[in-house]
Amino acid sequence: MKDYIKIDEWKIIEEGFDPHVHKISESIFSLGNGRMGQRANFEEAYSGETLQGNYVAGVYYPDKTRVGWWKNGYPEYFAKVLNAANWVGIDIQLDGEQLDLAKCEVTIFRRELNMKEGYLKRNFTAKTASGKQVEVEAIRFCSMADDETGAIKYSVKSITFNGEITITPSIDGDVKNQDSNYDEKFWDEVSKEARQDGGCVQMRTKKTGFEVATGMKFQIVGGEVSSEPIIKEKYIASVVKTQMKAGQTVTIYKYAANLSSQNHPTEQLSTLTYAMLDKVAAKGFDTMLAEQVAAWAKKWEHNDIIIDGDVSAQQAIRFNIFQLNQTYTGEDDRLNIGPKGFTGEKYGGSTYWDTEAYCVPFYLSTAEQRVTRNLLLYRYKQLGKAIENAKLLGFDNGAALYPMVTMDGTECHNEWEITFEEIHRNGAIAFAIFNYVRYTGDEAYLADYGLEVLLAIARFWSQRVTWSDDKQQYVMLGVTGPNEYENNVNNNWYTSTLAVWCMQYALEVADKVKATDKTKYDALVAKISFDADKEGAGFKDIIAKMYYPYDEKQQIFLQQDGYLDKEQILVKDLSASQRPINQKWSWDRILRSCYIKQADVLQGIYFFEDRYDIDTIRRNFDYYEPRTVHESSLSPCVHAILAAKLGDEKRAYEFYLRTSRLDLDDYNNDTEDGCHITSMAGTWMSVVEGFGGMRVRDGKLSFNPFLPEKWNSFSFNVGFRGTTIKVTVSKEGVRVKNLSGGDISIMVYQKEYNIFAGQDQLLKP
Amino acid sequence: MKDYIKIDEWKIIEEGFDPHVHKISESIFSLGNGRMGQRANFEEAYSGETLQGNYVAGVYYPDKTRVGWWKNGYPEYFAKVLNAANWVGIDIQLDGEQLDLAKCEVTIFRRELNMKEGYLKRNFTAKTASGKQVEVEAIRFCSMADDETGAIKYSVKSITFNGEITITPSIDGDVKNQDSNYDEKFWDEVSKEARQDGGCVQMRTKKTGFEVATGMKFQIVGGEVSSEPIIKEKYIASVVKTQMKAGQTVTIYKYAANLSSQNHPTEQLSTLTYAMLDKVAAKGFDTMLAEQVAAWAKKWEHNDIIIDGDVSAQQAIRFNIFQLNQTYTGEDDRLNIGPKGFTGEKYGGSTYWDTEAYCVPFYLSTAEQRVTRNLLLYRYKQLGKAIENAKLLGFDNGAALYPMVTMDGTECHNEWEITFEEIHRNGAIAFAIFNYVRYTGDEAYLADYGLEVLLAIARFWSQRVTWSDDKQQYVMLGVTGPNEYENNVNNNWYTSTLAVWCMQYALEVADKVKATDKTKYDALVAKISFDADKEGAGFKDIIAKMYYPYDEKQQIFLQQDGYLDKEQILVKDLSASQRPINQKWSWDRILRSCYIKQADVLQGIYFFEDRYDIDTIRRNFDYYEPRTVHESSLSPCVHAILAAKLGDEKRAYEFYLRTSRLDLDDYNNDTEDGCHITSMAGTWMSVVEGFGGMRVRDGKLSFNPFLPEKWNSFSFNVGFRGTTIKVTVSKEGVRVKNLSGGDISIMVYQKEYNIFAGQDQLLKP
Repeated sequence: MKDYIKIDEWKIIEEGFDPHVHKISESIFSLGNGRMGQRANFEEAYSGETLQGNYVAGVYYPDKTRVGWWKNGYPEYFAKVLNAANWVGIDIQLDGEQLDLAKCEVTIFRRELNMKEGYLKRNFTAKTASGKQVEVEAIRFCSMADDETGAIKYSVKSITFNGEITITPSIDGDVKNQDSNYDEKFWDEVSKEARQDGGCVQMRTKKTGFEVATGMKFQIVGGEVSSEPIIKEKYIASVVKTQMKAGQTVTIYKYAANLSSQNHPTEQLSTLTYAMLDKVAAKGFDTMLAEQVAAWAKKWEHNDIIIDGDVSAQQAIRFNIFQLNQTYTGEDDRLNIGPKGFTGEKYGGSTYWDTEAYCVPFYLSTAEQRVTRNLLLYRYKQLGKAIENAKLLGFDNGAALYPMVTMDGTECHNEWEITFEEIHRNGAIAFAIFNYVRYTGDEAYLADYGLEVLLAIARFWSQRVTWSDDKQQYVMLGVTGPNEYENNVNNNWYTSTLAVWCMQYALEVADKVKATDKTKYDALVAKISFDADKEGAGFKDIIAKMYYPYDEKQQIFLQQDGYLDKEQILVKDLSASQRPINQKWSWDRILRSCYIKQADVLQGIYFFEDRYDIDTIRRNFDYYEPRTVHESSLSPCVHAILAAKLGDEKRAYEFYLRTSRLDLDDYNNDTEDGCHITSMAGTWMSVVEGFGGMRVRDGKLSFNPFLPEKWNSFSFNVGFRGTTIKVTVSKEGVRVKNLSGGDISIMVYQKEYNIFAGQDQLLKP
Repeated sequence: MKDYIKIDEWKIIEEGFDPHVHKISESIFSLGNGRMGQRANFEEAYSGETLQGNYVAGVYYPDKTRVGWWKNGYPEYFAKVLNAANWVGIDIQLDGEQLDLAKCEVTIFRRELNMKEGYLKRNFTAKTASGKQVEVEAIRFCSMADDETGAIKYSVKSITFNGEITITPSIDGDVKNQDSNYDEKFWDEVSKEARQDGGCVQMRTKKTGFEVATGMKFQIVGGEVSSEPIIKEKYIASVVKTQMKAGQTVTIYKYAANLSSQNHPTEQLSTLTYAMLDKVAAKGFDTMLAEQVAAWAKKWEHNDIIIDGDVSAQQAIRFNIFQLNQTYTGEDDRLNIGPKGFTGEKYGGSTYWDTEAYCVPFYLSTAEQRVTRNLLLYRYKQLGKAIENAKLLGFDNGAALYPMVTMDGTECHNEWEITFEEIHRNGAIAFAIFNYVRYTGDEAYLADYGLEVLLAIARFWSQRVTWSDDKQQYVMLGVTGPNEYENNVNNNWYTSTLAVWCMQYALEVADKVKATDKTKYDALVAKISFDADKEGAGFKDIIAKMYYPYDEKQQIFLQQDGYLDKEQILVKDLSASQRPINQKWSWDRILRSCYIKQADVLQGIYFFEDRYDIDTIRRNFDYYEPRTVHESSLSPCVHAILAAKLGDEKRAYEFYLRTSRLDLDDYNNDTEDGCHITSMAGTWMSVVEGFGGMRVRDGKLSFNPFLPEKWNSFSFNVGFRGTTIKVTVSKEGVRVKNLSGGDISIMVYQKEYNIFAGQDQLLKP
């Protein structure tokens, strides 16, 4: 754990230069606009430890898999988000001496991520080895308004230096992924050009053949300059020289654009890149920045959570919301949310079940409906590949198994216990459809897309269960649940519960679509050869005769068969020296232990909360919580929400703390690899569903809030079916303000209220 | 499956040159003498597909592990047997045109492995592209008499060629392992020298620092020669030229020696290599070959199994015995038996539980007592590392977990479900001690070495079980049994049975040693801080309260918890198109299925046969056999032995057939990687323990033989406590001949007989 980040309501601030935390800061101060993003690498050369990262959404590379012992069925390739051309580079030389903070005496250093306005600012004063002293201010952002562009304003002010400054803005495509399995470079050069005031490098990914043109256009203010273009492999730059004197400032404005063949005709890429550069350069940096501020203001209007009385918590929740918005904007249904977003390479930038289980609730409430719909369509479009994937594993008749990790719908992950057995992801994908329809009321989605996915998933489950002659029930053998500290278990309660629910829901939706839109229903049934009678009867038989592990004595759902055989030492009785167990214990010991990596039974109870009475929830919570080590960043939020539900406000707050500053305080000692983007949505859930007690019941928003002890108040905006309300929970009660033009009926503390358009009501329990 | 090998009682014969089977033949025709070995690569250059392989026993390299997803506890390195300097090379040029069978018209080709006399002979007639025709005969062997040497006699007879022949004998150390994880070469050059009549290359392995000097000395007969030494990186050769005419023969005798720093002072290696070469060259090829024939005659005297009436079965069993003797001679307790011996790189040439479970019975009966004792001492010497290994996994108090795969005692394997969970290997190592003492009566071994290993293993098991509050019994969680088609199961019957037996046996041996040799006992107890009362009580509690899965209804031992939940489709009802399942099914599907890779419950019944009545054995055999796919080469022998025990002679014979010609007929399509050396011991077991029904009971050999229907008779020699008997089973009965100077008392068909020295008795049931 680190605590070098300064506390501020709207800003992330680092003061003083410490190379040891630089890679962490590169992650935390990352920028993105949904279309592209980058780590907070320095513009000028830096010879110290750094993880260079520039990413273009949706551009990936299938790296050849590396395994120890090949298992049948493993995918050959692992799709990775690519480290793309670096467009931030601005090399600075002072009379030939390179400005490199690793080699300077840095007297002042301040890095600031302005979350309100969406830019990164860096100021420093440095003295080179030979004693030349300069002051630098760098501001940059990835434009939300023009999302294929970014801009940098980089000013060097001489303090003591009199001489020639050389400024070399560049586009450097000669990059590689640090996580390349075989140390290969993934890009080939297509073309490059260096001009007097900029240039462009176009590159093509090996195998996948994506092309990306990355260009720059720059302008120098503050002196007479000479400029000379240079070209190297996958690299273009301009060497700009000017004389400067102590007290003088030279500023370079660098505009960059990243255009991808996914969005433009390949043969026009560089032409369009230059056109885009001309367009934004014509606007100029200040206008672009103003548009950026405006775009973010609009985001915050919908998204902000305001916490009064706890600046650290305020900063944290905004950081989470900020990063989520930088990662995914919902404009493009080919894109999704990688666990590290644009902040690092780890987890390959691919899509996991994190999206459906954790991110969907966030986007449902804080973004327009189409954003979540696009996330759903992403999976719909990959249904064919999910069916293909299931076929490879021996399933048939249109059964679909969505991949555990994917970029384009094919499975990337190769660890059998996860790849083949962590099949609950299929359930989360179905649940997201349910959740979306429950929230938005968009039942048309079901007829158009949802049912097709649901039936394919239900078919998978119906084939994946096994009839046990011994039990005279259906069992679910060989799975890994959300708790990845168990592998290849039988009858994981969560997976079995979700599987049966999927079949139930698929049948329910089938009936509904049949009743409301017979034409579409018939078309679908014909398309996928669904035998409603026979297959439906099969589903129903499984629904009726499924086996769920249960402990009669303690009246709890059992995580899986045999769980009670484990040695039951509670986490609190485990020596601190043994934790985190995933760093201290060998894998087999972890597997044999009773310790739970992340909510498993409780994840199921969270999904299907309405099925269980409060005593059942309490018994299971009281049993599993003390056994959960929360070594997944996705875990505490579910516990926070359930603790809140159970009225345990203190614990709910503790769980919230564990997620909200995870990256800012580098809790797990891994922020340097990138930020935990998807779990940030869990932080949002902790506040809104936990403290706010928000649920959707019978097509209405329902709230059951409490105010954490340390806070004076907190408020959040929620969009719901065309209406936006602002909910403020304070000591005086719950204030609900209807921000939109229509009325809304909501439940607060089990009582129904109609809030008229524009009305602001204070409600008390 | 292939069947190109000609049937012969004593020879393995290939006729006609087919490049497609060349790599298979390179495996089958491999040579070895326990100290070194090699694949049957051609002497002359060959540009076709080949797997080059020369190996020096005990010289290994810890290759950096390659894994997909690192799990805590994985070893960093995987020790591999090294491809060492190639000493067989004899390049032939005819007026500058290289003799290369891949580029010649080969009219006659015959490869013959003379198992009786221990050499490889190859004859061929080839016409080069330009029409030069020669006849070649090559004979070579790895000397049993001088086990650091080998010899080649290579004769070229001109048929049509008149001109200059260039003969280039070489030592080529510039080799690499095909299975190198990162394409590295594992050897550095130390020194090299080329002389007029030979030379030497000395190399050192990276990391491990083994040095091996490989030298040659040659002599040319048949013409006036000029010779010119050449030197390249890690390579020396002599270019010898002479003129030849049609009808003339030129012969090169090439003597080679491999001396390793394991056995000699490093600084004298090359000197000693030259001395060794002088020694064997002075003997000459014919004398060396005569000694080879004599050494093998002595082996066969002890080892041979004679089958009358089935030449194919005769050839197969001799091939198995031959390869076992080539692989391990028992002279050196630092060596062991790699699953592929000296016939390939696969499985790293390391030690597996194969040695204890399958090879020990073979060596006990066919070799001197010290051979098996050396195999036991090999593990004794690695006890410290086994304790270290267990410590890494969280065990303490001197608990030992022997590695799954090892070269020097450290674990090499990195696949968690096997590395950490296939812990039954520990039991096999204990069982081998029991088996050795039962067979030899060498109880002194227990006090000197055995007990220390047994207690360390018992300590491991006592910590590895878990007390289940739920069951009020001890359970064994998270293991993989011999059936590797199940991973991470709870309460594998075999493992639990073996674990408890280990504790029982350790206590029994402790009592015995305490009673018979109090001094050694006290010394050991002090050395390992064994608290006999407390730890003993702990063991006994586990022994008394262990849980074993059992099905009351069918009265069978259950392979593991939950086995009955599986879909029970018998192997015979599985479509042939689905087999072998390890090539046709994804791993998760294999795991969910009821199919058994190799004997698991039945392996336990085989080990502890005397505990179970015949009905119990039959019930379990009848249940598990139809579910076993035998996709491990180690499986059928156990089934053969139990089928024989149950009187099912037909099935016993079928199982025998599956193992005996596994490599000769390339049953599993993988012989090109090397031969299945350790499972060859299983073939021997099928004959002697299966058809011969041999057991040791109460310190006596006992036989319960039957004659397979197709055979007229079979006979085998068995050494037992200083006596050797020859057992011949024929239609007339069982003939037992005592070949030694002392009397022996044996049981045949439950009746006791005393066979006097030299006596030959015919016994009938």
